[in-house]
Amino acid sequence: MLNITIPASTGNLGSGFDVFGLAVRLYLHVKVNRSSNTRTTVEFTGEGSDIISPSNNLMLTTIKRVLKSRGIKTPGFSIHIRNNIPIKRGLGSSGTARLAGVITANYLSNLGMSNQEIMSAAIKLEGPPDNINSSFSGGLTASLVMENGITHYRRCTFPLDLRLIFAIPEIRISTHQARQILPKKYALKDVIYNLQRVSLIFEAVRSRDYDLLAHLLKDRLHQDYRAVLVPGLQDILHFESGNGLVGTFLSGSGPTVCALALDNFSHIGERMVSAFAAHGISARVLESKADNRGTRIVER
Amino acid sequence: MLNITIPASTGNLGSGFDVFGLAVRLYLHVKVNRSSNTRTTVEFTGEGSDIISPSNNLMLTTIKRVLKSRGIKTPGFSIHIRNNIPIKRGLGSSGTARLAGVITANYLSNLGMSNQEIMSAAIKLEGPPDNINSSFSGGLTASLVMENGITHYRRCTFPLDLRLIFAIPEIRISTHQARQILPKKYALKDVIYNLQRVSLIFEAVRSRDYDLLAHLLKDRLHQDYRAVLVPGLQDILHFESGNGLVGTFLSGSGPTVCALALDNFSHIGERMVSAFAAHGISARVLESKADNRGTRIVER
Repeated sequence: MLNITIPASTGNLGSGFDVFGLAVRLYLHVKVNRSSNTRTTVEFTGEGSDIISPSNNLMLTTIKRVLKSRGIKTPGFSIHIRNNIPIKRGLGSSGTARLAGVITANYLSNLGMSNQEIMSAAIKLEGPPDNINSSFSGGLTASLVMENGITHYRRCTFPLDLRLIFAIPEIRISTHQARQILPKKYALKDVIYNLQRVSLIFEAVRSRDYDLLAHLLKDRLHQDYRAVLVPGLQDILHFESGNGLVGTFLSGSGPTVCALALDNFSHIGERMVSAFAAHGISARVLESKADNRGTRIVER
Repeated sequence: MLNITIPASTGNLGSGFDVFGLAVRLYLHVKVNRSSNTRTTVEFTGEGSDIISPSNNLMLTTIKRVLKSRGIKTPGFSIHIRNNIPIKRGLGSSGTARLAGVITANYLSNLGMSNQEIMSAAIKLEGPPDNINSSFSGGLTASLVMENGITHYRRCTFPLDLRLIFAIPEIRISTHQARQILPKKYALKDVIYNLQRVSLIFEAVRSRDYDLLAHLLKDRLHQDYRAVLVPGLQDILHFESGNGLVGTFLSGSGPTVCALALDNFSHIGERMVSAFAAHGISARVLESKADNRGTRIVER
């Protein structure tokens, strides 16, 4: 039997567009049993159980694609999926499904993949590496796609006194849509604005310099443009730091917004919900922390 | 008597355009004596002594501007300047002159400026903060210009096993010219390329991960465009890492090129000189190391 637990992730952290991912204590839990016949049985509970079916289940698709690419016919298995990660909301759920699929394929057909190979295979299917790297390794990761297409990353432990408060509005936007809305070209001053901030995020996190971090979360490359798709975002991005709030940013490509806070958690959550409500959008709040452990794989 | 020693600096480090500065063991030495009369006597030796006169001496201009802005008439003094920093070559010489000027004004008229005020005043006159921050604080600095115009920075000690090999070609380009040649707008993929690299430079330096650092020096925002002004640069940027060479980058806005190396120093210097020579440009080599101490100010 295989047991997998994969944390969600929030991407970008404002200035770190397509660079940073942070693993979050919201999980995709998967149990897999090999079967003596060729049948696949799937049980799916939790977030997304109303819209995910075996035919559009990204984890199942991934298992088949990984095995097919190696010329292996998918064997029978039974799988139980318990998902606590809101899907298509900017919390890296598709990355967790990709990882779960690769890990399951590796288990079912004894592929003997290393951790590095598991991550690479998942990234190859997913596209951007930031969510997958943090969901797999835990903590805060900075990812780097090399000239040869291979991805490197470095991680650092994320402090647990910094609470992550997510406001998840009842709207869906696709990653594609969130890309399309970005300008084709950027002015140098906006580019340098982000470069200067991104260069210090690891430093600020490692030294727990939250006054500095508050400045580093600010961005000029994607959030303002995406505010068109997420009414209320602009107001939340302008929340002033202080009274427990470090800063706010769009989680991945949205629509979820994340606040980093040291205190006044429920008040900050309520303010975010109110900002969405002012635009006629209902939102729920999830309070969480960083996951510094990453993906757990247990075979028995 | 006032004694000032200020290290040169190399800016950008490839991907860290307008972000990073690294202090270098090439110095501007200044000795100042108050005078009993209103006369200014200047002795200038070393780099730039052929073209710098009292009327175009940036340090003297800075002394006067700092004092004038506070409504103070410049008192008489004698000054001895010994400069080992090639000027207008991308080694931060104007930043060192600004710093020397502010520090001297502070001394001459007992302004009581703090280190922070000295740096701010120098940056205000100079423009970009990267060279001044590293020349003042020593080591590798990442600078951040805030919304209110104030500059923050963080520094890290730069390892001394990494030698800095500068090839200084016999051409002059102005910072203005080097700015003008840049495109007005950048494609997102090029922006992300640099963002991903910049995010890890402090990490790579702190952990002495030179394999990683080699990748982080690469840039898509300024060096390729500036190669038009620096014939030979493109060839040097394409030197492959290995055999002691970590990587190469344009020093500040050029025309000097810097190689980071662990071994084979003279061979690497010769290769850079040959690359310039192939374009009919003569160049000299300076081997140096990082200065982790920064500006020294001694009053007696």
